[in-house]
Amino acid sequence: MRERNFDPRRSRPWSKSTRPGKPASGGHHKQRPRFRGGDHDGPVILFGWHTVKAALGNPQRRFHRLLATENAARRLEEAGCKLPLAPQLVRPEAIAAAVGPEAVHQGLLAEADPLPSPHINELDPTGVLLVLDQITDPHNVGAILRSAAAFAVSAVITTARHSPEATGVLAKAASGALEYVPMVTVPNLARALQVLKDKAVLVVGLDSSGEADLVALALSAPIALVLGAEGKGLRQLTRTTCDHVARLDLPGAIKSLNVSNATTLALYVASRGIAGQR
Amino acid sequence: MRERNFDPRRSRPWSKSTRPGKPASGGHHKQRPRFRGGDHDGPVILFGWHTVKAALGNPQRRFHRLLATENAARRLEEAGCKLPLAPQLVRPEAIAAAVGPEAVHQGLLAEADPLPSPHINELDPTGVLLVLDQITDPHNVGAILRSAAAFAVSAVITTARHSPEATGVLAKAASGALEYVPMVTVPNLARALQVLKDKAVLVVGLDSSGEADLVALALSAPIALVLGAEGKGLRQLTRTTCDHVARLDLPGAIKSLNVSNATTLALYVASRGIAGQR
Repeated sequence: MRERNFDPRRSRPWSKSTRPGKPASGGHHKQRPRFRGGDHDGPVILFGWHTVKAALGNPQRRFHRLLATENAARRLEEAGCKLPLAPQLVRPEAIAAAVGPEAVHQGLLAEADPLPSPHINELDPTGVLLVLDQITDPHNVGAILRSAAAFAVSAVITTARHSPEATGVLAKAASGALEYVPMVTVPNLARALQVLKDKAVLVVGLDSSGEADLVALALSAPIALVLGAEGKGLRQLTRTTCDHVARLDLPGAIKSLNVSNATTLALYVASRGIAGQR
Repeated sequence: MRERNFDPRRSRPWSKSTRPGKPASGGHHKQRPRFRGGDHDGPVILFGWHTVKAALGNPQRRFHRLLATENAARRLEEAGCKLPLAPQLVRPEAIAAAVGPEAVHQGLLAEADPLPSPHINELDPTGVLLVLDQITDPHNVGAILRSAAAFAVSAVITTARHSPEATGVLAKAASGALEYVPMVTVPNLARALQVLKDKAVLVVGLDSSGEADLVALALSAPIALVLGAEGKGLRQLTRTTCDHVARLDLPGAIKSLNVSNATTLALYVASRGIAGQR
């Protein structure tokens, strides 16, 4: 089988260039950010086994194309995946040329529309929600989404600006989580937190200077955990809008964790807290 | 102030090239891996505020040189750092040229000897130890070391092969943890686990197919938590050498975490388990 219809010399497909001739999906994106990752309407790039396999199983995903090596196509078939489109069989080098030599693509690359994103006002908050206050590193945000899916978080809320797009390395690090956790993009985080509070959500920020250890706080669902970027932490208005600001006490010489690790630990502690376990 | 004595056109300093004319530190590295990161005897590169500041405060570190921007040098002075060597004042671009354009160097770069590494036989195991079975991604290993320092882990044991060197992006992600947690590099992990068991250490592997949830196991110190690489997991001989293989039960659609997140959660659960809290 030969490669067809794929030119690795094209610019990397997750760059912000729009596809000429492609109609904007929907057309309502100018009123408000309808699509994950802010106001971008270009296609997203998904690569890696878990990421692409989960997307292929999501009936909400609209695909433009699917590239697969022979091996990966066979693995998809053996895994019983019903494919919504026929894969273009390519050699691994063709995918590497598109996603970069360091990316672990595992023989799969899909180009798809971003998923629709619920509006904050439409959200029916349950269980645990996660709010990311301008966390910019796509590896960290991807790993956070993966943990969010693992802890059955009901929605992840991010800012339209200063947040990475739900594509490429973020999608790879999320390991399929984009398909399981609704992402809500908001223009103003403090206002979004107020919307949540009006819906009886307990809003708890995490910060090393927090008033109490998270494990010691009385927690109840629905709850929103708010995480800030490493170094900068929560912005002032974010912090003052929270019902509580809690810390995660650590016994060792270093007093802060990588932000995805802090988020994972906060999800665990909060899940137990809600269940009455300390 | 001008740049002096620094040529950004030099090859990146954490490449494996040895420095001509530099005598090997010690000379016993041929008998066994004495230095962190395996049997490499070249200098390590440390960049970023927390990483370099922690190293400067470690009397065990032997520095070759310290590059700092004017701003960073002033910050070090304001933070009351006693510098073991005079910084070479450079412009930010000079550091960026050495560490790459994407690295967040925060105006600081140090070149130093690797830290001495205790031999597994010399280890007096206390509290929690962490064992990494061929985890190769330097961002993940760095974040794991940071969590290890945050949870006061007494030593981190890695394999001499298939582990990243304790330099560059690993050191940056570790955020100073290299200075706080002894790292032990071993040629044979199963044999090292047996040494720990002979020293009355409870050896618990983590794997999604583990026999019990870690939170449900009876845990006691000293304990070694053994983590495998994502995808591959624990190697067969590693697994069979463990006293127990435990899993971390997760309630959501995704059943596994990023390895640094899994490690952080395991450290938290094990620390509580040892303290009799569940």
